[in-house]
Amino acid sequence: MAEEGITGVDPDNIVVTTGSQAAQDVACKVFCDPGDTVLCEDPTYVGALNTFEAYQVRAEPIPTDEHGLIPEALRQRITELRGEGARIKFLYTIPNFNNPSGITLAAERRAQIAEICIAENILILEDNPYGMLRYSGEPIAPLYAQYPENVIYMGSFSKIMAPGLRIGWAVVPAHLFRRFYLASEAVTLCPATFNQMLITKYLDGHDWRGQIATYRELYAARCAAMLEALDEHMPAGVHYTRPEGGFFIWVTLPEGIDSYTLLAKGIEAGVVFIPGAAFSPDDAPSHRLRLAFSAVPEDKIREGVKRLAPVLEAAIAENSAR
Amino acid sequence: MAEEGITGVDPDNIVVTTGSQAAQDVACKVFCDPGDTVLCEDPTYVGALNTFEAYQVRAEPIPTDEHGLIPEALRQRITELRGEGARIKFLYTIPNFNNPSGITLAAERRAQIAEICIAENILILEDNPYGMLRYSGEPIAPLYAQYPENVIYMGSFSKIMAPGLRIGWAVVPAHLFRRFYLASEAVTLCPATFNQMLITKYLDGHDWRGQIATYRELYAARCAAMLEALDEHMPAGVHYTRPEGGFFIWVTLPEGIDSYTLLAKGIEAGVVFIPGAAFSPDDAPSHRLRLAFSAVPEDKIREGVKRLAPVLEAAIAENSAR
Repeated sequence: MAEEGITGVDPDNIVVTTGSQAAQDVACKVFCDPGDTVLCEDPTYVGALNTFEAYQVRAEPIPTDEHGLIPEALRQRITELRGEGARIKFLYTIPNFNNPSGITLAAERRAQIAEICIAENILILEDNPYGMLRYSGEPIAPLYAQYPENVIYMGSFSKIMAPGLRIGWAVVPAHLFRRFYLASEAVTLCPATFNQMLITKYLDGHDWRGQIATYRELYAARCAAMLEALDEHMPAGVHYTRPEGGFFIWVTLPEGIDSYTLLAKGIEAGVVFIPGAAFSPDDAPSHRLRLAFSAVPEDKIREGVKRLAPVLEAAIAENSAR
Repeated sequence: MAEEGITGVDPDNIVVTTGSQAAQDVACKVFCDPGDTVLCEDPTYVGALNTFEAYQVRAEPIPTDEHGLIPEALRQRITELRGEGARIKFLYTIPNFNNPSGITLAAERRAQIAEICIAENILILEDNPYGMLRYSGEPIAPLYAQYPENVIYMGSFSKIMAPGLRIGWAVVPAHLFRRFYLASEAVTLCPATFNQMLITKYLDGHDWRGQIATYRELYAARCAAMLEALDEHMPAGVHYTRPEGGFFIWVTLPEGIDSYTLLAKGIEAGVVFIPGAAFSPDDAPSHRLRLAFSAVPEDKIREGVKRLAPVLEAAIAENSAR
C-alpha cells in the first residue's frame, strides 16, 4: 500500500479477506439492514451489486463523468434520498480504473467526495484492486491515505499476483475493526492459511514489484492495441473511455440501442462483451458495453474489435432508421 | 460421500464452498431474515452460533442425550416455538461425533427427526465434517442419504485433508440449488480455484482413503489415550462422553460449577479447554467443557488430563462446601 501512498497503517487494523469480494460482503453484514441504502458509481462492479442485492440493500447509482463520481450529483442525491427517508450506510467506490468504465476519480474530487461523506456521516468503501496497474498518467493517492477514519480500504492479490488464491485485505478504522473482524470470522473462519503462507513467501522471496512491472507492460500494450483498433474500426457515433490503467474500456453506443440484444450477434462473430445493464442496479436496457483487454493477446484484441465493428455498425444503422 | 452411504448425487447439485462454515453462512443468507429461528443441538458448534448471530437469527437449542437429539424434545419445542409465533427456518445438526459433545445421532432417531422436520416443513442442514473419522462402531448413513429433498448436506476437506485450504461442499436439493449457488457467489465469487485444483490432483493421484485410514488410526489412539487418562485421573462427580469418532470429548462437572471460571486455572496448569458456555446460544454459565484430542500427541494428552484433574477436584470440593 505504501507504493500507492498509504503509509503508517497499523497491521492490527488489517483484516485478511477471501478476496475483496468477501470484504464487500462483510461490510454489508456489519453495516446494513434490509432496506438500507448504499451509494455507488454509475456504472459499478457487478459483483458488488450482487452482494448488495443478497443483503436486500438498495444500491443507488450516482452519476459519473470522465473524471469519475460527480461531487455535486453525490451531494444532491444524498439530500433527495434523505428526504425520502433512506438510511444511507456507505458509498462504495472503485476510484482507480473503475470496473467497468476504466475511469479514474480525479484527485481534487477525492477530497470533495470524502468531505461530503464525512459531513453526511456516510462511510466510504474504497475498492482498489487495480491501483497498482497504472499504465500512464500520475498516480493519485487513495482516499484512505487522507481520510483513514472514514474509509475502509480494500486491496486484493487477485490482479497483482493470482486470482485463484482468493486473498484480499481490508484496512478498517480502529473503531470499526472488532465488528468487522468478527463478522468476517463468522463467514469463513479465516481465509485459507495455506494461500496466505504462499503469498507471504512470494512477497518475501520474489521480486513482486518487478512482476507487477511486467504485468503493467503486458496490459499497457493490450490496452493500447484495443484503443488503436477501436480508433481504426469503430463507426461514427461510438465513443469509448481511454483508461490509464486497469482491465476495461467502456463503450457508449448511440442512445436507443440496447447492448444486451447485440450480445448474441457478438458471440456469433466470435466476440464476447458484457452489456452495460449488468453494471447498474436496475438492470435497465443500456446503450453501453464493457470490453476487457487483460486476458487476450494483442492480435486477438485487434481481430475481435474488427469483428465487433460491423455488429455495432448494423445496430447503429437500424437504430437511426427507426 | 459414497463411502458414507450417499450415492447417486448429481454433480450439478453440489456447490463448492470456502469450508463448510461458508455453507452455513450462505444457508442463513438464503433462508433467514432477522428475527427468524433456527434449531440446533444443545450443545452445538460455536462457529455456527456465530454465523446465526451475524444474521440476527435466533438459535434455539434442542436437548440431546447420549444418542443425540431427542426427537420428542424436538417435536415439543417446535410446537412451543410455533405457538410463540416463531418462524423456524431450519434444523442445523452435526449428527456424527458432534462438536463439542462427540455424540453421534442414533440411526433410528435420524429417520424420526427427518420425518418430524418434513412434517413441519423445516429444512435440515446436515454438517458432517467428521463422518469419515469413525474409530469404532458401525457407520450410520447420513440423513441426506434417505431424505435428499429435505436436507442440505455439508462436507469439508478440512478434517480429512487440510484445514488451511478452506474448501468444503454443500449438496443442495435441486429446487433450492440456484438461490444457494448465486448467494454463495455473492460472498466470495468462488472458493480459491488453486485450492480446488490442488484437491482434485490429490484425490486423483494419491491414496486418500489410505491417508484417512492413517488419520483414523492416529486419532483413535489419541482418543483412547484421553479416555484412559480420564478414567484414571478424573475425580468422582465428573462424567464424559466416549465418542466413536471425531475430535472431541465432552466433560460434565457437578452442577453449580461454572467451567469458564476454571479456564484461567487450567491455563496456569498448562491445559486449555473450551468452556461449555461457548456452545450454547445464550452463553449462560455451563458446568461442562470440551476437550480436544486431535492435535496433541498421546503422552501430552495423558499429562494434560493429569494436570487438569486437580483443578477440577478443587472446584468440586469448593462447590460441595458451598
